[in-house]
Amino acid sequence: MDQTAFFARLDRQRIETPSWGYSRCGTRFGAIPEPGQATTLDEKLEDAAIVHRFTGICPSVALHIPWDKAPNNDWVAMKRRADQLGIRIGAINPNVFQDTRYALGSACSPFADVRAMAIEHMAGECTQIMRDTGSDTLSLWFGDGTNYPGQDCMRTRKRRMEAALKAVYERLPAGSRMLVEYKCFEPSFYHTDIQDWGSALLFCQKCGPKAQVLVDTGHHLPGCNIEHIVASLLDEGRLGGFHFNARKYADDDLTVGSIDPYQMFLIYNELVGAEDSSDPVASATAKNVAYMFDQSPTLKHRIEATIQSTVFVQEMYAKAVLVDRAALAKARAEGDVTGAEEVLRDAYNSDVRPALAKWRTAKGLLAEPLKAYRASGLKESAAKERAIRHGSAAAGASGGFQ
Amino acid sequence: MDQTAFFARLDRQRIETPSWGYSRCGTRFGAIPEPGQATTLDEKLEDAAIVHRFTGICPSVALHIPWDKAPNNDWVAMKRRADQLGIRIGAINPNVFQDTRYALGSACSPFADVRAMAIEHMAGECTQIMRDTGSDTLSLWFGDGTNYPGQDCMRTRKRRMEAALKAVYERLPAGSRMLVEYKCFEPSFYHTDIQDWGSALLFCQKCGPKAQVLVDTGHHLPGCNIEHIVASLLDEGRLGGFHFNARKYADDDLTVGSIDPYQMFLIYNELVGAEDSSDPVASATAKNVAYMFDQSPTLKHRIEATIQSTVFVQEMYAKAVLVDRAALAKARAEGDVTGAEEVLRDAYNSDVRPALAKWRTAKGLLAEPLKAYRASGLKESAAKERAIRHGSAAAGASGGFQ
Amino acid sequence: MDQTAFFARLDRQRIETPSWGYSRCGTRFGAIPEPGQATTLDEKLEDAAIVHRFTGICPSVALHIPWDKAPNNDWVAMKRRADQLGIRIGAINPNVFQDTRYALGSACSPFADVRAMAIEHMAGECTQIMRDTGSDTLSLWFGDGTNYPGQDCMRTRKRRMEAALKAVYERLPAGSRMLVEYKCFEPSFYHTDIQDWGSALLFCQKCGPKAQVLVDTGHHLPGCNIEHIVASLLDEGRLGGFHFNARKYADDDLTVGSIDPYQMFLIYNELVGAEDSSDPVASATAKNVAYMFDQSPTLKHRIEATIQSTVFVQEMYAKAVLVDRAALAKARAEGDVTGAEEVLRDAYNSDVRPALAKWRTAKGLLAEPLKAYRASGLKESAAKERAIRHGSAAAGASGGFQ
Amino acid sequence: MDQTAFFARLDRQRIETPSWGYSRCGTRFGAIPEPGQATTLDEKLEDAAIVHRFTGICPSVALHIPWDKAPNNDWVAMKRRADQLGIRIGAINPNVFQDTRYALGSACSPFADVRAMAIEHMAGECTQIMRDTGSDTLSLWFGDGTNYPGQDCMRTRKRRMEAALKAVYERLPAGSRMLVEYKCFEPSFYHTDIQDWGSALLFCQKCGPKAQVLVDTGHHLPGCNIEHIVASLLDEGRLGGFHFNARKYADDDLTVGSIDPYQMFLIYNELVGAEDSSDPVASATAKNVAYMFDQSPTLKHRIEATIQSTVFVQEMYAKAVLVDRAALAKARAEGDVTGAEEVLRDAYNSDVRPALAKWRTAKGLLAEPLKAYRASGLKESAAKERAIRHGSAAAGASGGFQ
Repeated sequence: MDQTAFFARLDRQRIETPSWGYSRCGTRFGAIPEPGQATTLDEKLEDAAIVHRFTGICPSVALHIPWDKAPNNDWVAMKRRADQLGIRIGAINPNVFQDTRYALGSACSPFADVRAMAIEHMAGECTQIMRDTGSDTLSLWFGDGTNYPGQDCMRTRKRRMEAALKAVYERLPAGSRMLVEYKCFEPSFYHTDIQDWGSALLFCQKCGPKAQVLVDTGHHLPGCNIEHIVASLLDEGRLGGFHFNARKYADDDLTVGSIDPYQMFLIYNELVGAEDSSDPVASATAKNVAYMFDQSPTLKHRIEATIQSTVFVQEMYAKAVLVDRAALAKARAEGDVTGAEEVLRDAYNSDVRPALAKWRTAKGLLAEPLKAYRASGLKESAAKERAIRHGSAAAGASGGFQ
Repeated sequence: MDQTAFFARLDRQRIETPSWGYSRCGTRFGAIPEPGQATTLDEKLEDAAIVHRFTGICPSVALHIPWDKAPNNDWVAMKRRADQLGIRIGAINPNVFQDTRYALGSACSPFADVRAMAIEHMAGECTQIMRDTGSDTLSLWFGDGTNYPGQDCMRTRKRRMEAALKAVYERLPAGSRMLVEYKCFEPSFYHTDIQDWGSALLFCQKCGPKAQVLVDTGHHLPGCNIEHIVASLLDEGRLGGFHFNARKYADDDLTVGSIDPYQMFLIYNELVGAEDSSDPVASATAKNVAYMFDQSPTLKHRIEATIQSTVFVQEMYAKAVLVDRAALAKARAEGDVTGAEEVLRDAYNSDVRPALAKWRTAKGLLAEPLKAYRASGLKESAAKERAIRHGSAAAGASGGFQ
Repeated sequence: MDQTAFFARLDRQRIETPSWGYSRCGTRFGAIPEPGQATTLDEKLEDAAIVHRFTGICPSVALHIPWDKAPNNDWVAMKRRADQLGIRIGAINPNVFQDTRYALGSACSPFADVRAMAIEHMAGECTQIMRDTGSDTLSLWFGDGTNYPGQDCMRTRKRRMEAALKAVYERLPAGSRMLVEYKCFEPSFYHTDIQDWGSALLFCQKCGPKAQVLVDTGHHLPGCNIEHIVASLLDEGRLGGFHFNARKYADDDLTVGSIDPYQMFLIYNELVGAEDSSDPVASATAKNVAYMFDQSPTLKHRIEATIQSTVFVQEMYAKAVLVDRAALAKARAEGDVTGAEEVLRDAYNSDVRPALAKWRTAKGLLAEPLKAYRASGLKESAAKERAIRHGSAAAGASGGFQ
Repeated sequence: MDQTAFFARLDRQRIETPSWGYSRCGTRFGAIPEPGQATTLDEKLEDAAIVHRFTGICPSVALHIPWDKAPNNDWVAMKRRADQLGIRIGAINPNVFQDTRYALGSACSPFADVRAMAIEHMAGECTQIMRDTGSDTLSLWFGDGTNYPGQDCMRTRKRRMEAALKAVYERLPAGSRMLVEYKCFEPSFYHTDIQDWGSALLFCQKCGPKAQVLVDTGHHLPGCNIEHIVASLLDEGRLGGFHFNARKYADDDLTVGSIDPYQMFLIYNELVGAEDSSDPVASATAKNVAYMFDQSPTLKHRIEATIQSTVFVQEMYAKAVLVDRAALAKARAEGDVTGAEEVLRDAYNSDVRPALAKWRTAKGLLAEPLKAYRASGLKESAAKERAIRHGSAAAGASGGFQ
């Protein structure tokens, strides 16, 4: 592939960073504070802008409501603030799991008033924020489910979820879409109301064409072939977006690629393969996928972790672009299993770092984003400024991570 | 629940036994021969008739083509033979995985002639056997998939599977249905073309209303909530049948209930709950489910294993019938998690064996089927007769199981 | 088994409840407050005493330091308080995961001062509390591990853990023992320093005979055969204790038996079988096992959940006692796989509730502990009193659980 | 690292290929014949010699008894034959699972005569073959276990296994060692007698220093951190060998690295890190590890699959050698989690193929082994010759793989 074509592909890649990826996170056993961690939405936007400045492919930031708050609830002003920082507001993520009234579910709660509250938060408050901020994506994840056998009727809950999703769908702003995320467990431990891609797809079918499935790479049972799910949803025209992260056991929310980088290459291979295919549905769907991180990188500095992750997905995408699709098609047609696999491996084994450095330089970016950020002094200055602003003493005790 | 009503429910339960459950089985490391094991279809029917004689709820036997062969290919005669034995032919299971031409797939093979061969076996040969034997169910399982990343295009294969299923669907005998089974892995190890219930459901949707999903309890990833899948498919009117067995790790095909009996109770609880519900689709669907075993009970005598399994599912069904549905509904409506669970546990903890013994006696059956079979001498006489018939020396060396 | 012998076995069963099982708990997505939940150690002891009053087999309570605090650090007074309430202090559980200085580990931290701090907490502060409260068990669990490949040297960390455990072992109070718990993941997601029973056993071997392994039933990978681990540790004389709970996916900490009750029966079957065996090591070890709950029963009332769990393990123990060991031994010796399994099933299928009710009545307890507690009004009165004491408004909004 | 040092490291790498990797293999659903597949041991040795000729690092071949047979039982002649072919006999693998007398176990069978038979096969027949062929490794894997709860006493079986292993250990030829393999399931499905590394280590401890653990990369439960097991066994001086292969679900026996190549890099990283460490036990143990394949590459040509696998492990080893250990140690000491991970990634992301091609050329090998073998015509000529020799028609029907 010649450099111009290759660079043109790289130019098209985008990945959205989440506001909550810049603030405190942890496990049920506790969270570890980090000096300079963002606390206000303004600070989160600043951090997102820094990531975009060093990587060049992260121009938007996803919000989580009500974790993110606009002063005076003025979301138009917040949009302007993002503009000033050179970024924009991406997906709006309602929160229907944290209020204790959602203990037995939100959209699927046995209590009608709780269901109404959840629907209003999604269809009312959050779609208004979409309009105010110019967001075109409503991204829905539900903690709904049960903890114990018998707790509730799973069929009835399925009907409640369907009704809620349809109600939200009806009130989507013009030109926007709704992403439906699935998860096999947690925080519900016996069953979750949208347990897998099949379930999410079924709900999307019932809503309409603007409803699509969101694949979080950490939300599957052990052994699940995620790239096959990606292929299936592309073929159905229903793959809407991703939440990238890594897992070894459960929904560990580690930084993407840290556990099984080849899997991420195989996922991108499906996406690039579909983009380049002659199938109009798969190709159009692939070109319109919303890529986002959803990580909880305890023990890593938030901005460093996000830059590291961005560079990683850029590398995987670049390798997927390098796959020799004609050779692959030939080997497949001949039933040459080893040969077909070798085509993928040849691309995966390539070291794309020099080419990416070149592309960055051509874009006016620094060649090595993580090293450049580490050398910039921005981490230290933010820690200092924010400690002063919020009056908090810096953490950094012995035992903490760097 | 009064005894008349309870017995009326028990009267309705049926479970089909598979012809291959009476013949040699094993693992990839080898199979262990058992004295008196059935080798011809006639012998398998004899064994199935014995199981029905001792249990009273196994009146039909599933066939696997071409493992099962009718002399002179006279399937009408084979139907008569079943009639004579007091049983009937149930689901017809095509085999599209064993011929070495299926190495890279059957319905999804990259080779058009192989795909055509698979379709003809299912839609031609097997539907003819359905007509000849009076079977109303075509039960499809595919070993199709790939072993290595890149081996074949998963989207293309999805289209091939859709085309094949539609071709078969078109040629279904009048009044019959087609069951589509899914499996997460094995014998394909990287991806399987129908990997889960969502995938099977999607294919059924594309075919039409006579296509329904078959749930094999051993075909799921670790942690999967099977009863939730059952509930979802009932709600969609697409649960067609079951293959019951037990697993601890992979598709171990142990006798049902041997590893996690409570799970089987919870599955029956969904089925009985749907039957009794006011939802017309779920209720009608539940009443029409085809229950079948699909076990590979290495180390257990085939007939004993089947009787033991039948008694087990009868117990679980009986317990599910005993669930106090009014109390359950009340606890759920009040958000009483502990109370709702206790309603299920109360039924599960009940010892239904005395009531089942009574029901059997009332039906003219012996009270304890497994003990009765063991005491009948039938095992020993079959071993003797068949050893003579087939000229084989009895095995039974030291080290073998009883 | 005659009733006298059966009741004598029931008399010997004990299970310890954890102080933290009476206070707030939740997931990383939030915790749900419950009216009347214990906040002080005094209140937790009151709750534990109530559980013992209704069940008769929970005379001791495990403490977690520093979650549990004695006013003025007077643990001798706290011991007296427990005495007054008719219970006693059981295992002392140090906390070496919550302080942010433990971000990179406690006993295995790369920082020597952090390791020293962890050792001093365990060997100094906690052994002093053991002496003051009369506790004879130090129960160690570590969150230690790493989140990312490369983060630290796993061999070096193993040596650090060994050194720390030996240092603690040396300072154990006379007559006490040290339990070493293992866990496959969480809160560390790439590796945990004591990942499985083999690892915990290795550390115990290096320390000495007073170090034994603690099995938490939720700390295993999917498919793990826990009863086999129990058997192996019994044979080595190294099974020290249990943390009972239930899981479907990860370390879900549901109430014991809620997901797979048969597994708990099989665990008790190993324990009772070892107790009754002629093997002196296995028998003595089994008789000295410390049984404890470690649950996080979100969505259930704390005391109700603990009573329900206690009744459940009593039922499983009773069923294990009922196993016909002579018939089991005979079937095994003959290689009668089906027959041996039927012996276990016969015991498991028995309804032991009437016998347990009789035993309770004979002990002066109410026949049905959970129903009795629910009818007692104690839940409501505690909620009222504690709301007044702590000045907090009762929660109980719509959406909460009962 | 300069090229001389790097090449010196590459010179030291060895990996043994198994005789059974050249003959027919499959799943329980069937095996697919391949034209030219080896059927005699002589042909398997020929194939192994070809792999060595193209890769330069596979000088030995593991045997499986009695799958491999020496004409007239003359193993000395078979050793000479290997010498002629430029290879040597490696590990001897007894088979104690295939004879139907092993249905209920071999070393752990409830029947004393079966146990004696198994011991004699391992300690008598196989150690004699070791002496005759110059093999210094006895590699033990057991299918022993149970399929159903209750089937046998797990503690008693543990004692039987211990007795058998000690009996074999006593009869090991001078200068040889015994490797003990573990496996979590299959062909036993309820429990396996040597279920995990902890169990295997315990047995090795009881036998003596010449007993070491063999890690088969496919024999773990989902989520297991294998590199941590490697590190632990190195630290204990008990890592004896590997069986390399890949898995996605169960013991899939795919070609190594096909599913998760990064995991293999991390395993080699532990091995190289230990070799280079100052710890004398870990370093000596790492230098003495026996590396072997144990794959069942259905759908791939046997020799191609073995060459492909060899090249893959060479790449992973080379990348592990390239890890900057000083930088890694520094990042770890500073608690720089991101930095430490980046050191590993930097090595993993490097494209070592050009350097390996150079090393091969320097050794007189062809630069690209798989392409060279494919271009050699050897595959086709062997297929032809062996078809003539064995009088079998070539397979190669449509549907087969290339």
